[in-house]
Amino acid sequence: MFIAVIGGSGCSRKEAELAQAVGQELAKQGATVVCGGLGGVMEAVCRGARSLGGRTVGILPGNSRDDANPYVEIPIVTGMGYARNPIVVKSGQAVIAIGGSFGTLSEIGHALQNGIPVIGLNTWSLSRGGKLEGSIIVAQDPVEAVEVALAAARGEKP
Amino acid sequence: MFIAVIGGSGCSRKEAELAQAVGQELAKQGATVVCGGLGGVMEAVCRGARSLGGRTVGILPGNSRDDANPYVEIPIVTGMGYARNPIVVKSGQAVIAIGGSFGTLSEIGHALQNGIPVIGLNTWSLSRGGKLEGSIIVAQDPVEAVEVALAAARGEKP
Amino acid sequence: MFIAVIGGSGCSRKEAELAQAVGQELAKQGATVVCGGLGGVMEAVCRGARSLGGRTVGILPGNSRDDANPYVEIPIVTGMGYARNPIVVKSGQAVIAIGGSFGTLSEIGHALQNGIPVIGLNTWSLSRGGKLEGSIIVAQDPVEAVEVALAAARGEKP
Amino acid sequence: MFIAVIGGSGCSRKEAELAQAVGQELAKQGATVVCGGLGGVMEAVCRGARSLGGRTVGILPGNSRDDANPYVEIPIVTGMGYARNPIVVKSGQAVIAIGGSFGTLSEIGHALQNGIPVIGLNTWSLSRGGKLEGSIIVAQDPVEAVEVALAAARGEKP
Repeated sequence: MFIAVIGGSGCSRKEAELAQAVGQELAKQGATVVCGGLGGVMEAVCRGARSLGGRTVGILPGNSRDDANPYVEIPIVTGMGYARNPIVVKSGQAVIAIGGSFGTLSEIGHALQNGIPVIGLNTWSLSRGGKLEGSIIVAQDPVEAVEVALAAARGEKP
Repeated sequence: MFIAVIGGSGCSRKEAELAQAVGQELAKQGATVVCGGLGGVMEAVCRGARSLGGRTVGILPGNSRDDANPYVEIPIVTGMGYARNPIVVKSGQAVIAIGGSFGTLSEIGHALQNGIPVIGLNTWSLSRGGKLEGSIIVAQDPVEAVEVALAAARGEKP
Repeated sequence: MFIAVIGGSGCSRKEAELAQAVGQELAKQGATVVCGGLGGVMEAVCRGARSLGGRTVGILPGNSRDDANPYVEIPIVTGMGYARNPIVVKSGQAVIAIGGSFGTLSEIGHALQNGIPVIGLNTWSLSRGGKLEGSIIVAQDPVEAVEVALAAARGEKP
Repeated sequence: MFIAVIGGSGCSRKEAELAQAVGQELAKQGATVVCGGLGGVMEAVCRGARSLGGRTVGILPGNSRDDANPYVEIPIVTGMGYARNPIVVKSGQAVIAIGGSFGTLSEIGHALQNGIPVIGLNTWSLSRGGKLEGSIIVAQDPVEAVEVALAAARGEKP
C-alpha cells in the first residue's frame, strides 16, 4: 500500500509531530510513505516511518538527489519543479494532507481531480458559493488519518 | 500582457457568459488570453477574445492539437495531462479563475505558490483553521476582474 | 502551420546563420516558429522570423518570462527544466533540427517517438548495429529544410 | 546505488536476455533498478533483479499503477506520458541502455545533457559531421555494463 503524505516544507512544531506520528503509524501498518522528499512535514513523516522500519519515497522537485531529507530511502529526481506535485499524489492510493500552504493546496486539487481520496489533518477547507465543499475527509488525529487512508486506498467507502 | 483564465471544461451557462465577457474585455485591453485550450470556460473565454480580434493560447493536456477548442489560435501540445496545469498559470502575469472544479483548485494553488495574483469570479474560497484565507482577490464582474488582473500584472498592489 | 526549430543554446556562427535563414523562410511561408525560447539557434531563428513579421513562440524551461530571447513574441513559462523538451517538438507539426547537442538529441528522440517528421541541417546522425538509421530527413540548406518541413507537416510523404 | 536501465517496451529475445542478466547483476551488487516500469527491456530487467531479491522502481507514463509490469516493486505514477523520460534517467546515478528505439534515444539525450554517464549494450551510436560521438560507453556484456555503471555512479572515470 502506498500513501502520499503532503504538507509544507516549512511547518509548525505541531504539524511536525502530527506528520511524525502519521509516518510511524503507516510503518506499523506496512504502508510505504510517498512524499515530496524535502523538509518540514515531508521530513517529519519520513523520520517517523523510518524510525519503525517503514519504507519512504521522495519525489524531488530539483535536479539533485542530495536535496532529499535524510529519511528518504528512494529519491526520485524529477527536475520539474512543482510540476512534480501531481506525481506525488498520483503515486499514492490515498493522500493525507497535514497543514500546508499553497503547494499543498495544488496537490489537494490534483488528488481530488484524479479521484484519489484526501484525508486532512489541520489543513485547508474549501467552499464554493458560501457552501462548504466536503471532499476532504477530516481526521481528528494521526491514527484516525491513517486508518481512514488505508480503508480508502482499499476502495472502502468512508 | 498575458492573462491566464482558468475554469472547468464543464461549466454553467452563467460561468460561460462570465468567461466570454472576460475574453472580450481582455481583447479590448490588448491582452493575450492563456488557457487550458479545452471546452467550457476555456472555450468561452477564447470565443470572447477572438470575437474582438484578441489573441488566444491554449496549453493542451493531450497529444493532439485537434483537442483545442476552435477559438484557440496558438495550441501548445504538452502530452502531460494535468501536469500541464502549472504551465497555464505560470504563462500568465495574473490569473482570472471563473467557477471551476478541482483542476481549477490545483491551478489556484500553483499560481499562489508562485506569487502570481489570482482574481476570482464565483470561484473557490479557502480557509485554514476556521479563518478565511484572503489570497484570492474577489471580483464582482468581468470588467472589474480584468481591470484588477491587468493592474496586478503590472505589479500594482490591489 | 507550426514548425518547431531545435538546436543548441550555444551554437556556431554557421548554425546561427542557418537558423536565421530558416526563420526568415518560415515567416515568408506564413508558418509560426515554435522553439525553446532561449539563445543560440533559438534566438537566431526567432530573429529571422521576426525580421519578416513572422510569429514566434518560446517554450521556456525556467520560471521567468524574462529568460526569453528578445525575439520571442509568445513566451510559455513551464518551470519544468528540460522536461519541457517534448512540449517543444509536440507543438510543431514538423521539426527542423540545426546543429545541436544532447538536448537537441533528446528532442529528436521525442519527435520521432511521436511520429513527428524531423528535418536535419548539420545535425546528429544515428546508427544502430553499424547501420545508419534514416529517420532524420537530411536537408542541404534552409530553403530546402523549410520546404520539406511544410510538406511533411501537411502530411505529404517525403 | 540507483542505476537506470532503459530500452524498448518491445524488444528482441536477445535484448530481453541482456536486460534480465543486467537486472540479476545489479541485484547481486546491491543496486536498485530504476526503469520506465512497462514491458520489454523494462520488464526483463525487473524480473532479473527480483529473481535475486533486488529492488525495482518503475516510473510509469500513464495514470494507473496497474500499468506496471509484475516485477516493479515501487510504481511511480506520473500521468505525464513520455515527458516522464527525463525522470527515469535523472533518478539513476548512471544509465544502462539496452537496444531501444526513439524513446530510448530521447532518454540517452536527457542523460548526457545532465552529465549522467550512459553505458550502452547493442544500442544507438551517434555521430556528428561524419565523426563518431563517443559519449556512450560501449559495454560488451551485462557484467561489464553493470561494473562500468557502478564505477561511473561512484564518480570514477571510465
